Amino acid sequence: MASQYYDIVIVGAGPVGLMLSTILARWGYKIKHIDNRAEPTPTGRADGIQPRSLDLLRNMGLKSAIMAHKPARVYEVAFWDPPADGKGIVRTGTWASCPAFIDARYPFTTLLHQGHIERVFIDDLAKNGLSIQRPWTIKAFESDAKAHPDYPVQVRIEHVDGTASETVRAKYLFSGEGARSFVREQLKIPVTHIDPIAHVWGVMDGVVKTNFPDIKMKCTIHSEHGSIMVIPREDNMVRLYIQIASSTDADWNPRKTATEAQVQASAQKILHPYTIEWERVEWYSVYPIGQGISERYTLDQRVFLGGDACHTHSPKAGQGMNTAFLDAQNLAWKIHAVEKGFADRNLLKSYEVERKKVAETLLSFDNKYAKLFSQRPPAANEVQAASDQTSGSASQGENEFVKTFKENCEFTSGYGVAYEANAINWSDRHPAQSPLMISTGGPIRTGRLLPNADVTRVVDANVVHLEQEVPLNGSFRIFVFAGDAQSNRVALRDFARNLTRSGSFFSSYLRSDIDQVSWHETHNPHSHFFTFLTIFAGARSSIEIERDAPEVLARYRDHVYADDRWDRRVANAKASAHAKMGLDETRGGVVVVRPDGYVGAVVKLTEGSGTVDALNQYFGAFCTKKLGETMAQL
Amino acid sequence: MASQYYDIVIVGAGPVGLMLSTILARWGYKIKHIDNRAEPTPTGRADGIQPRSLDLLRNMGLKSAIMAHKPARVYEVAFWDPPADGKGIVRTGTWASCPAFIDARYPFTTLLHQGHIERVFIDDLAKNGLSIQRPWTIKAFESDAKAHPDYPVQVRIEHVDGTASETVRAKYLFSGEGARSFVREQLKIPVTHIDPIAHVWGVMDGVVKTNFPDIKMKCTIHSEHGSIMVIPREDNMVRLYIQIASSTDADWNPRKTATEAQVQASAQKILHPYTIEWERVEWYSVYPIGQGISERYTLDQRVFLGGDACHTHSPKAGQGMNTAFLDAQNLAWKIHAVEKGFADRNLLKSYEVERKKVAETLLSFDNKYAKLFSQRPPAANEVQAASDQTSGSASQGENEFVKTFKENCEFTSGYGVAYEANAINWSDRHPAQSPLMISTGGPIRTGRLLPNADVTRVVDANVVHLEQEVPLNGSFRIFVFAGDAQSNRVALRDFARNLTRSGSFFSSYLRSDIDQVSWHETHNPHSHFFTFLTIFAGARSSIEIERDAPEVLARYRDHVYADDRWDRRVANAKASAHAKMGLDETRGGVVVVRPDGYVGAVVKLTEGSGTVDALNQYFGAFCTKKLGETMAQL
Repeated sequence: MASQYYDIVIVGAGPVGLMLSTILARWGYKIKHIDNRAEPTPTGRADGIQPRSLDLLRNMGLKSAIMAHKPARVYEVAFWDPPADGKGIVRTGTWASCPAFIDARYPFTTLLHQGHIERVFIDDLAKNGLSIQRPWTIKAFESDAKAHPDYPVQVRIEHVDGTASETVRAKYLFSGEGARSFVREQLKIPVTHIDPIAHVWGVMDGVVKTNFPDIKMKCTIHSEHGSIMVIPREDNMVRLYIQIASSTDADWNPRKTATEAQVQASAQKILHPYTIEWERVEWYSVYPIGQGISERYTLDQRVFLGGDACHTHSPKAGQGMNTAFLDAQNLAWKIHAVEKGFADRNLLKSYEVERKKVAETLLSFDNKYAKLFSQRPPAANEVQAASDQTSGSASQGENEFVKTFKENCEFTSGYGVAYEANAINWSDRHPAQSPLMISTGGPIRTGRLLPNADVTRVVDANVVHLEQEVPLNGSFRIFVFAGDAQSNRVALRDFARNLTRSGSFFSSYLRSDIDQVSWHETHNPHSHFFTFLTIFAGARSSIEIERDAPEVLARYRDHVYADDRWDRRVANAKASAHAKMGLDETRGGVVVVRPDGYVGAVVKLTEGSGTVDALNQYFGAFCTKKLGETMAQL
Repeated sequence: MASQYYDIVIVGAGPVGLMLSTILARWGYKIKHIDNRAEPTPTGRADGIQPRSLDLLRNMGLKSAIMAHKPARVYEVAFWDPPADGKGIVRTGTWASCPAFIDARYPFTTLLHQGHIERVFIDDLAKNGLSIQRPWTIKAFESDAKAHPDYPVQVRIEHVDGTASETVRAKYLFSGEGARSFVREQLKIPVTHIDPIAHVWGVMDGVVKTNFPDIKMKCTIHSEHGSIMVIPREDNMVRLYIQIASSTDADWNPRKTATEAQVQASAQKILHPYTIEWERVEWYSVYPIGQGISERYTLDQRVFLGGDACHTHSPKAGQGMNTAFLDAQNLAWKIHAVEKGFADRNLLKSYEVERKKVAETLLSFDNKYAKLFSQRPPAANEVQAASDQTSGSASQGENEFVKTFKENCEFTSGYGVAYEANAINWSDRHPAQSPLMISTGGPIRTGRLLPNADVTRVVDANVVHLEQEVPLNGSFRIFVFAGDAQSNRVALRDFARNLTRSGSFFSSYLRSDIDQVSWHETHNPHSHFFTFLTIFAGARSSIEIERDAPEVLARYRDHVYADDRWDRRVANAKASAHAKMGLDETRGGVVVVRPDGYVGAVVKLTEGSGTVDALNQYFGAFCTKKLGETMAQL
């Protein structure tokens, strides 16, 4: 049978599939993307975008398209409970959903229906000539790298009405099919349940008229008549979640259901003494849900799962889409690094390792938090005190509740993701054993996002967000915090000299078309593998790129910055970006950031070859070539 | 001859005409809009948008569409001059274009070609069913309010090739035709020249390759070979202005010209020792320009002029489009207030009074500044000291240069516009003689923009920009700074009680459909004439709208705010928005802001009827109805 050849076949055009194809399409991959629905999500479904996901969308240039739909923004969560005398409900407290101790650019969650979000991705795909093949479904696949080393995966897909089918070959197959994944079932990968408790939820989106004062806030409401969760939406809508049944009920029935009118009547009782009426219901659905995690995300690093195919949560956590986004982003850059010949194929194993751990941590944390909260509702001042701190570090005398509260905020904002030590996240067990590697217990930690920082771009004096300066283009971002230009003149010269020696990570992965690169190329004049950014601790007007930056760094003239912006979080620092990274403002340091924005390694900036030697060791742990040999012989 | 009837005929679809028709189309007016060009501006022309204009565009919801084109952003201006030894050029200083003493949300100027900007307006017009009739031109008009009181203006328009013509009747005619205005010529309105010096300028947009380090900055370069100005543009482009001839030259010839190659050769000489080559020239033009102001902006308050038809400047000031925007906005809301029956027709006289004064001040200031600067280039530390101040108030020992520098920054940023006292800008000569009117010499001044302030919206805990909360909808914005909710309980109750009495400005201009207004109506539940916003000095969680705001203010539930955000400019204030307005954080005060964002009046908030009496007096000075009579009798 004749086959078509693709880099990847992606099944499912929900958040995880769309994020993956959007990224890979931008990077030039040939994609077959199918979905068994005839149209994008018309109403309902996942809708919360975390603060951290807004950073990611901005890095992809998609945030403004999302914000153009004017999503609701949740800054605070309100808790309502029966009062002491037991009648009706009263507000017992409000908490910031992303408190000041988290250094977020966008300290709020946006709520927007999934269809709008999907279309932002679909429009972007169209710019790269890709459209989703609908309504098509996957019927069979097999993966055999021995027989077919170049395109090991064969996939048979079919129109849902059976009128047409195709068999294609691909380098990869990705299942973004959701909780009922055909691919996962075929691979016989079991789903484990961290919390065996299951629930049946009713969810209703609509426009209401009410005198309940917190209808535009996220609320958790407990009453003698039951519990609901309120989530504001765009266009004056509100979503209500109501628990219809729980496996802890005496008469538990996972098929229990309720009509729209029954749910509305329940909500009216729960909200008493406040009134609520529906002007319009946009969407209503009842569905059973349990927390589950797929035991494997891949068996052979050719067929992968992501999103709801790997992990399901209660809707309360609001994590579905955000976790899906990060699954896709994590996989995308690793496929890219392998396919372009930068990284060893083993890098792909870290997808499951990193992302499964995040899902597990998330679920176990969610349980712990819910339990703690049900045992002892915290006092308002306790929460206030925890929220107001502008530093993420644990302070003395923090009780268990405050600690758990903070962790919860980090998770729900998306900043709680912490990848463990491995070949790409340096630790003292990493093969790179240079004494110049900086142990990272301070504000900057490997496996965590680079902290935010404002700096001034030297060429045009624009004040910019340093962490956003390199778009999501698959390149490692090497931030040279150059400290004091005068004191570090020799160190910078030596850094440049050793960088350009043969055998370095720099020289080993130069672009083959380096002689034809445009003078206007901003991010990748030397290599698609990395971008260099240089940040001097000093006023913009004191910096002359030609004089202060060695030629190889000066070539990235749009990526030379002055660390001269005041930051309230490090109010006394002269160079706030250096300070936020925990780096000395005279001596600086080099921070390697993975293509997805997580810190890979931090190295001291010194005179001699040591800094580049250390970077060669770091990259050598997962690159395809032996690095640094030449230098070691010198 | 049969006539069609329109509210307004707008001639010219440059910035002033498009801004006017966009605003009026949104407010439901029937518009005939013609332009004698077959297409919007394809290249070149005006391109700088000031910080203040970005505020305005955001208030119209158009800023993100502009920013989607990724305009260049100018934060600093660099000055290059011959060095002491006379060879080549050296940088002699850089200045912030919108220094910290100006409290701007967007402290930069964006540069984007006029065609992109025009299309943003054209797309918005299309949403309201309006398209520009092209290429059509005006051939004749006459205005006779006695013979035709409803549609006094008759206009004959024609296709530019003469193949078709129409005669229409309108309430208003607006000329946004540019410097060579047919309407102005027909009205025989002379243009006066404040500075008689004229210049011939060459202007070239293109993509260059250069080692001149400030090519992405706005630069003024003087050399022994002549002078140029550098303006960065979007898409790696740069604009160079080069002066080809000046009326102060011995051989002055206003028809002198230069070829593209000649201008490039000149630029290469001027930039020496740096090199510059053009990869591509997008646009090149030579044109003579002088500073001139039309003596009148209207003769009868029916036929109006605006934009370049009224005032021309040297391109260096970068003021053309921004001044045009404000001309249009100023006229639009006044036409609206008159046509909807709120304001007396005399209000329209203030268009010329306000806008002509701004143009005069701008031009005379531009001259004064240029003269001062040519006499004595300031020392870098002098400028630095002036720029760094975060308060706009004059400090002791400020020399003439610093004072002029600051005024210049205010003008070029757009925040220098200060309308003089009249019926809508209160002063102690205003008919409203209530002792509760606050004399405004502090941070808040009548005729000036409301200061920026961050506050927290109570219903949803969103942190918002208070000055942006009411869109440009033609309504007066009445900010009730309520101070301390507890202390002001009686004052607020009395305010609400007197507001709703018959004869008040509130009761006199209620919507005729007030019984059918949707529960979700945010801005105009009572009247299209005004929106109320209530700001309490206190933490969001301490405010209960139902308890703290009287019913009439609580109806604007999306416009109740907590003044609980920290602001570096008033770092020690507990209620920073109150502090930025110069209002006491316990007692508060009422600030009336015109529909265009300029402060009209500030009134003390007191117990009894005094506050509303004062507002009745203020509005009574320009409204169609007698206000406050009933109350005065009580």
